[in-house]
Amino acid sequence: MTLPTEFHDIAKRVNNWGRWGEADEIGTLNLITEEVVREAARTVTSGRRLPLALPLRQDGVQTGLIPGRVNPLHTMVAVNAELFGPGTVATSDDAVTMGLQAATHWDGLAHVSYGGRLYNGRPASSVTAHDRAVFHGVEKAGPVLSRGVLLDVARARGVDRLDAGQAVTPQDLDAAEELAGVRVRAGDIVLVRTGQVQRYLTGDKEAYAYPSPGLSIRTPEWFHAHDVAAVANDTLTFEVFPPEIENLWLPVHALHLVEMGMPQGQNWNLEELSQACAEERRYAFLLAAPPEPFVGGVGAPVAPVAVL
Amino acid sequence: MTLPTEFHDIAKRVNNWGRWGEADEIGTLNLITEEVVREAARTVTSGRRLPLALPLRQDGVQTGLIPGRVNPLHTMVAVNAELFGPGTVATSDDAVTMGLQAATHWDGLAHVSYGGRLYNGRPASSVTAHDRAVFHGVEKAGPVLSRGVLLDVARARGVDRLDAGQAVTPQDLDAAEELAGVRVRAGDIVLVRTGQVQRYLTGDKEAYAYPSPGLSIRTPEWFHAHDVAAVANDTLTFEVFPPEIENLWLPVHALHLVEMGMPQGQNWNLEELSQACAEERRYAFLLAAPPEPFVGGVGAPVAPVAVL
Amino acid sequence: MTLPTEFHDIAKRVNNWGRWGEADEIGTLNLITEEVVREAARTVTSGRRLPLALPLRQDGVQTGLIPGRVNPLHTMVAVNAELFGPGTVATSDDAVTMGLQAATHWDGLAHVSYGGRLYNGRPASSVTAHDRAVFHGVEKAGPVLSRGVLLDVARARGVDRLDAGQAVTPQDLDAAEELAGVRVRAGDIVLVRTGQVQRYLTGDKEAYAYPSPGLSIRTPEWFHAHDVAAVANDTLTFEVFPPEIENLWLPVHALHLVEMGMPQGQNWNLEELSQACAEERRYAFLLAAPPEPFVGGVGAPVAPVAVL
Amino acid sequence: MTLPTEFHDIAKRVNNWGRWGEADEIGTLNLITEEVVREAARTVTSGRRLPLALPLRQDGVQTGLIPGRVNPLHTMVAVNAELFGPGTVATSDDAVTMGLQAATHWDGLAHVSYGGRLYNGRPASSVTAHDRAVFHGVEKAGPVLSRGVLLDVARARGVDRLDAGQAVTPQDLDAAEELAGVRVRAGDIVLVRTGQVQRYLTGDKEAYAYPSPGLSIRTPEWFHAHDVAAVANDTLTFEVFPPEIENLWLPVHALHLVEMGMPQGQNWNLEELSQACAEERRYAFLLAAPPEPFVGGVGAPVAPVAVL
Repeated sequence: MTLPTEFHDIAKRVNNWGRWGEADEIGTLNLITEEVVREAARTVTSGRRLPLALPLRQDGVQTGLIPGRVNPLHTMVAVNAELFGPGTVATSDDAVTMGLQAATHWDGLAHVSYGGRLYNGRPASSVTAHDRAVFHGVEKAGPVLSRGVLLDVARARGVDRLDAGQAVTPQDLDAAEELAGVRVRAGDIVLVRTGQVQRYLTGDKEAYAYPSPGLSIRTPEWFHAHDVAAVANDTLTFEVFPPEIENLWLPVHALHLVEMGMPQGQNWNLEELSQACAEERRYAFLLAAPPEPFVGGVGAPVAPVAVL
Repeated sequence: MTLPTEFHDIAKRVNNWGRWGEADEIGTLNLITEEVVREAARTVTSGRRLPLALPLRQDGVQTGLIPGRVNPLHTMVAVNAELFGPGTVATSDDAVTMGLQAATHWDGLAHVSYGGRLYNGRPASSVTAHDRAVFHGVEKAGPVLSRGVLLDVARARGVDRLDAGQAVTPQDLDAAEELAGVRVRAGDIVLVRTGQVQRYLTGDKEAYAYPSPGLSIRTPEWFHAHDVAAVANDTLTFEVFPPEIENLWLPVHALHLVEMGMPQGQNWNLEELSQACAEERRYAFLLAAPPEPFVGGVGAPVAPVAVL
Repeated sequence: MTLPTEFHDIAKRVNNWGRWGEADEIGTLNLITEEVVREAARTVTSGRRLPLALPLRQDGVQTGLIPGRVNPLHTMVAVNAELFGPGTVATSDDAVTMGLQAATHWDGLAHVSYGGRLYNGRPASSVTAHDRAVFHGVEKAGPVLSRGVLLDVARARGVDRLDAGQAVTPQDLDAAEELAGVRVRAGDIVLVRTGQVQRYLTGDKEAYAYPSPGLSIRTPEWFHAHDVAAVANDTLTFEVFPPEIENLWLPVHALHLVEMGMPQGQNWNLEELSQACAEERRYAFLLAAPPEPFVGGVGAPVAPVAVL
Repeated sequence: MTLPTEFHDIAKRVNNWGRWGEADEIGTLNLITEEVVREAARTVTSGRRLPLALPLRQDGVQTGLIPGRVNPLHTMVAVNAELFGPGTVATSDDAVTMGLQAATHWDGLAHVSYGGRLYNGRPASSVTAHDRAVFHGVEKAGPVLSRGVLLDVARARGVDRLDAGQAVTPQDLDAAEELAGVRVRAGDIVLVRTGQVQRYLTGDKEAYAYPSPGLSIRTPEWFHAHDVAAVANDTLTFEVFPPEIENLWLPVHALHLVEMGMPQGQNWNLEELSQACAEERRYAFLLAAPPEPFVGGVGAPVAPVAVL
């Protein structure tokens, strides 16, 4: 099958291939300049820190729908082991097996391909089981930290959370920006809140996973126009699911990761942040969200922190 | 066997049990107040970001000496899989198995016990294979972020790196503080550089692991006196190894984790930071180092970022 | 809470502690003598081989009810990798993470304890996260191979499968022995068919897991009287679940593993074997069922083969 | 690069593509007929059982040379957990992460490809990270059990073990057959003893791994002429390593797996078997060696048992 013309038209408009050179492997993260970071630090006024990661546990968000994306199996390899003899200081040690995109994570740029291509025209075949992502590995993203802006779409709409399968549109983003009272600008990391994570937090994993509200195929142009560095939200699928156009699966993934070279974050818990931003009547903050630097990773866990 | 009197004397002097209440599970991280965080944000002047984590790869720092602390086994569960049919957008996915303390990590407070006790008097038996750390799990540490101060002991001594088995003393910390031109204060996260990680970076894992320079049993009192929130360094063992007092194994671990309730970081790469601090002639910065929030974890990977 | 008198009465009657010496770690497997093995080989007449293991796949029998007993996560670490240069012979390699009792398996003798004791009076505390099972590790079971006897309880009852929650009684075993036309004798491995595995094979994992038919608390005495070497069946829980006596959980596990020192097998697929035995009108055969020899394992995967 | 003419000449002579039909996925295992199995059972005279698997432990045979082929990380997920309340029957549970070819194993037919082809002409591209081996998955091998014949090459040569890097030749196989006093025939599983595993058993893993004695490129024709069903030996590399012909890597793997469709076993411990065969002056026996049935596996652990 082929992707529809509509998709290709958008793809052309948001394409960033070559924008930061042929050898570039980090895409829109280039937009986080030192000036942007300095400004981000200046947003800190209260010193309040908010964690945005879901706790890592075996009873995590994965339901088995995505094969191989397993919830953490967290086991002990030692419990109070007196390795140096009875009565000595004892140590406990643990280990984990998990899908790198099982919980709160960044999609790396090599997570998705189409037409045999990754971001910046690299061949999809450069991703292999043996070498993983030779280009655009998530370790190359470096220490992701910038100004974060919460676009609280649910609040702007006046609802607790968007309905299942509802698309977040550019108009939603405009309205949320209006609510936030801040202009999204180059290098920002935008957090889009749908409220969907409440489903998981209240114990209904299946409803959290699918169907899901999420970003519309119309939003990549918005992010492109604003020169956003990265986008994360509070859903499993990131984009609206099932998709808006029949049989056009994962178009937002393809536009963001392949065309724009823009990392995406999923399963971020934005509930507490939403509350804090509303209380403090401010929606911009310092956001530290460095991915675990797995060499050749196509995704990586992250424990993001917003500092207000 | 019993621990020597000398150890118990120090233990009494640095003990923080009850200091933040009987129910406390985060120890010295309580010292990171909102004021501290605000001040930390103000240290940002250049906006330069420095990653402090070692890349996560199968050929990591572990040599097999510590059973169960395995280097990451990072595998692909899908490579350009066209899950929705031929010609559709394709996805790659990966998974990992690793020791939570295999690479750049925080020791959680439940990592070590002695005399049947964890920090704040909790029973060591509360750590189990089934429930892991019921008290002091690493997920409770929250979004660790504060002012970081580099105490560049190697530079202060005028050497590339300390010798194998050499102890970092309180005098070393004083000298490094002097070099840094900054006073360590309550809530700071102190990074102690020995230069030892160069051994790993230049390909000699065995030499990196053991014998190792590291913190002396005399330093916990220094950190206690300065009300430091956490300490990390660039070694596998954290404390000097083999130990200074015969048959007294892991005394610094016991003093920091059990007595003080102070998290420790290991395998941090401080080389680039050392260079940057020397260039900018400043040793205090914003440090974001949120542990991956493994529920009940006795340790956790972290991808720390220093912002100058 | 304490276990009921009824349980303790049975426990006394089936106890094998000391029967094969104080140092014994294999229990009833001692009953598989060389004479028994010779006789087992003589049962082979058609040369027909029947596999009794469920295929190992991520979509396995585990539903998440038993924490940590994860279905296999089977991943590729290399796919047609030309490690020695382009055009050379290429290799593919794979790896797995799984619970050792996730699929078709043997329970080792250290899988269960009560009153602080394992089989033969060993302290339960000898099982640790660091050393695993110091006594009765599954690797000590050695090459389990003997005469197998199928007790086809479902067929003897004239049903496709037993009802959910129905107990297999000593009378059922007698009737199935009668149907089989063979006397169970010392050293035999008895396979008890309930038909429950059909639930999994037809796609209903939840129904397979629970509630489940299985062995009654009355059957350990039957196995003890017949000096059976090991027992396996085609359920997840092995014994009837929920249990026959309120709040008396896992009594059959305790009697078999702790009191008798008799290994148990679960999740064995006996459907094809049932068909073959009925066709050939014989229910005794050579059974090879060597557990994977995990050192200190409390359980182990097995790929059993019946040879008719 | 291209493979040498010499290789292709042998390849033509041993090729089995189409021999058992175009759809065949088990190759030479087709040679294990019911008659062969009946005869195998008749070889049992003493009833003595010998395990041929190395114990599965973290300190296993892998040294890190083969990336991703990790030794077992065997961890506890529960230790004497009283899941149903204090004083109830307690359970311990364990889990593992390991390379499927890390220890005693069978190579599946999809383990190796060259020229873009697997056994029977299937495309190498049918092996993927997502689906693993669609053709020739190790689960299709079924319950491998046949007559085993030990060809004790070391004993036939009068040495404890072959030298590092020494090739086992067809003449060696003839001499060992002579010593054995048995004719290798269609459907047999041949175990070739070099004695190399002694290196691992006496603690020198590095010497065990490489350089290694092993099968010469001349031996596939011998196995082909004798219609052997499968071959296993007591080395890590199976074939002599480094290879006999410069830059011709893994030719025996390619001939056995791709051309003949014959499974190979590695890291089998034949020491005790060698002793027993010499004592009993007989080298044929019943061999049960069913691979763990990983769906789509390119290899699988096995716990083989020889019954004399």
